[in-house]
Amino acid sequence: MAQSPRPGAPVTVAQVGMHAGVSRQTVAAVLATPNQVEPHVRDRVLASIEALGYRPDRGGRTPNARSAGLVGYGMSARVAPTSIMSQFPRALARAVEDVGRHMLLFTTPEDPENVDAFDELLAQRAVDAFVLTDTVRDDPRHLWLTERNVPFVVFGRTWPTNGAQPGLWVDVDGAGACARLVAGLHRIGHRRVGLVGLTVPTVAVLDRVAGWRAGCERHDLPSGDDLVVAADADCPEAGEAAARALLDSADPPTAIMAVSDTLAVGVLREVRRRGGCPGEDIAVTGFDDSPAASVVEGGLTTVRQPLDQVAAALVELLGTGDRRRGVLLPGEVVSRGSAPIG
Amino acid sequence: MAQSPRPGAPVTVAQVGMHAGVSRQTVAAVLATPNQVEPHVRDRVLASIEALGYRPDRGGRTPNARSAGLVGYGMSARVAPTSIMSQFPRALARAVEDVGRHMLLFTTPEDPENVDAFDELLAQRAVDAFVLTDTVRDDPRHLWLTERNVPFVVFGRTWPTNGAQPGLWVDVDGAGACARLVAGLHRIGHRRVGLVGLTVPTVAVLDRVAGWRAGCERHDLPSGDDLVVAADADCPEAGEAAARALLDSADPPTAIMAVSDTLAVGVLREVRRRGGCPGEDIAVTGFDDSPAASVVEGGLTTVRQPLDQVAAALVELLGTGDRRRGVLLPGEVVSRGSAPIG
Repeated sequence: MAQSPRPGAPVTVAQVGMHAGVSRQTVAAVLATPNQVEPHVRDRVLASIEALGYRPDRGGRTPNARSAGLVGYGMSARVAPTSIMSQFPRALARAVEDVGRHMLLFTTPEDPENVDAFDELLAQRAVDAFVLTDTVRDDPRHLWLTERNVPFVVFGRTWPTNGAQPGLWVDVDGAGACARLVAGLHRIGHRRVGLVGLTVPTVAVLDRVAGWRAGCERHDLPSGDDLVVAADADCPEAGEAAARALLDSADPPTAIMAVSDTLAVGVLREVRRRGGCPGEDIAVTGFDDSPAASVVEGGLTTVRQPLDQVAAALVELLGTGDRRRGVLLPGEVVSRGSAPIG
Repeated sequence: MAQSPRPGAPVTVAQVGMHAGVSRQTVAAVLATPNQVEPHVRDRVLASIEALGYRPDRGGRTPNARSAGLVGYGMSARVAPTSIMSQFPRALARAVEDVGRHMLLFTTPEDPENVDAFDELLAQRAVDAFVLTDTVRDDPRHLWLTERNVPFVVFGRTWPTNGAQPGLWVDVDGAGACARLVAGLHRIGHRRVGLVGLTVPTVAVLDRVAGWRAGCERHDLPSGDDLVVAADADCPEAGEAAARALLDSADPPTAIMAVSDTLAVGVLREVRRRGGCPGEDIAVTGFDDSPAASVVEGGLTTVRQPLDQVAAALVELLGTGDRRRGVLLPGEVVSRGSAPIG
């Protein structure tokens, strides 16, 4: 029989597990990733949470004075110098300061399973909340932090398709923005819009691809497999190769959307290599509004991620004490010479 | 008569001032900026420091447990998205972690006189040392921190010409790297090398200009005023205008060195606008190896700032407990299509 919680003491994850007849890990999984848990197990755990009145014991931890107000941001080793995410630490620091707190910036290894840095910071009581980016599907760090009742917010979704992401998140509506790019290209006369994706797409990239497809369907444009080429890696060279494949196809597109500015830079190169002028002969678009987008000749039409707004929304969510909530911000289409759609 | 220090108690800046018959501020100025102080005053203060055995009382402060190990890095609002300094927070966080500490990232206003953020962090005992970048001549923050005996290290020099900078600093040898760029351009046949500078040069930019001049003189190349154009701002548009002025001059250069990649991007545009091919018709070089340098068509020859090494050297200096020391790291010339000198 499940052990009853002591009166007045906060209910623990272990007690919920005992009540429901499952492990602590399963309770944490239900909290973090309800859609990944067998429905009958999930329902039992949710009933136990309800019955025992379980609440994350954030107030129950005795935070060391050292950690008061410090928000930890783990920056992945994966962030490329050309990535817009290089700009994020300052945007986040400013947002954190706006609510009278400070930010501890630490580095995280490429492997999202590796939570050593989080573990160490918690053991040292160096921070009392985390901001995470570089979200991967079923992000193991989210589960790990949920299990430990550590407050955290996430830039990015792990299940963009069903909207049932646990925890607190802020994201940019990549699908909506890419659909608007297609609409803009359609408006200036394009009827075949190719797509450069990635062979190993992130959740965010899948979202952008979905937006391209939805935009094409809405305007009765083709969106078949012959219009999609997946690049091996997120680098200009892979973008060049993908553009080559699209432009050499039997019925080549007149516009090419790339799921990142970095890939779009490669597409621009390939168009120029063939003697074409981007924006006149072939329209090209990217995603991110990274520094590259304004540096390339003529400028790259792209989608700006509103990092300052993202940072402010993340910090605001952290302050609410809510357990589950998401904020989806629109991406801003920025029209430049490579596809004058604005 | 100057008050004698109590036996055993650490000598204070105030006591040194009284001994020398000057204000605390003057003592701090001698510690921070000896070359800016009248020689006879400086000598008197140095004699008092010697006589009283003054040492900065870092050990005398009672650091709150909260601050143990936290290094504060103030990132200026001035850093442009295209700047290589966008990459610095992660490099520094990693270097700080390598010695078992953590980094608090905060933002600083554009005005270097404004030390509110430093003051607040010290009052909160949130950090126990600072790393500073975006150095300006006679940087007021350095003086302010010196007065308060707060450990700090600086990326950048405030007096590159005489090597007498107080405190701990690490810098990249911009002059040496720019002289090597000139040597490389000379080697591939260029005999007139123009320079795009800035109307309001930073200390680092002056260093690069000095390197260009030294390189030209070493190879008996002209370095007159007709080969120098100062851009209004560090943006591609200003680089374009400067290149136009150089290329429209009576005896135009065959190679153009810009003091930043951002300006070089504008120079490349102007060369292309005239139907020229950078690297074939006109050689173009930048400085920074920013993301832009590898993104522009053909690639930009530039100087890489070794940020990981800079960060490691800064953290190492902070750990020495030294009061004065500088480390000058070489910049690495990166040869790309815009000036194939490698």
